[in-house]
Amino acid sequence: MAERSTTECTSKLNAIDDALYVIGGKWKLRVIASLREGHKRFNEIQRVSVGISARVLSNELKELEMNGFVKRTVHTQTPVVVEYQLTDYADTLGDLFLALAEWGEMHRDKIRRER
Amino acid sequence: MAERSTTECTSKLNAIDDALYVIGGKWKLRVIASLREGHKRFNEIQRVSVGISARVLSNELKELEMNGFVKRTVHTQTPVVVEYQLTDYADTLGDLFLALAEWGEMHRDKIRRER
Repeated sequence: MAERSTTECTSKLNAIDDALYVIGGKWKLRVIASLREGHKRFNEIQRVSVGISARVLSNELKELEMNGFVKRTVHTQTPVVVEYQLTDYADTLGDLFLALAEWGEMHRDKIRRER
Repeated sequence: MAERSTTECTSKLNAIDDALYVIGGKWKLRVIASLREGHKRFNEIQRVSVGISARVLSNELKELEMNGFVKRTVHTQTPVVVEYQLTDYADTLGDLFLALAEWGEMHRDKIRRER
């Protein structure tokens, strides 16, 4: 890994920090990824995000809503139905998800080759 | 966000899950990013990864070493010096860091515009 100019690197590091501050952590990207197929209800998101508790999912959805990635819609028929969907702003994460998916596939192939 | 074919999406979701399993969480990418400038000692990494405790950093470095992203070198002069550097395998994260940095810069501009 070639050593980069410090100023260039510091600004890149800050930008990476900013990104990870908003979408880092164990669950955020996984919850967003689960909604990329289309809108879902709470328990549908929980089922796809294997291992997440209801309390943690509820907090993650609140933060994602506050940061403008997720829209919460309450359908007032009986029984009331609450649905979550991605906002247009979440589309800006497209390249990042692509890079994550490509790296994940590459990493999985590497692990398989090493077995 | 157009609804994608479920099989294509499931395999992408699994790949994203695999990636986040290895490099997700609050600190991994930030610790790797801090080493992209070149090798560093423990306290140098801790200083750049603002907010990380010594105990957490020590665990993260052990996991990153185990997963093949970081190499630990012990220089046996007196006093002993321990240095960490990225492996060639960590280079495969280049596109991901680029996508993260670009998104972080875009997000920061959006936040500034909204103030």
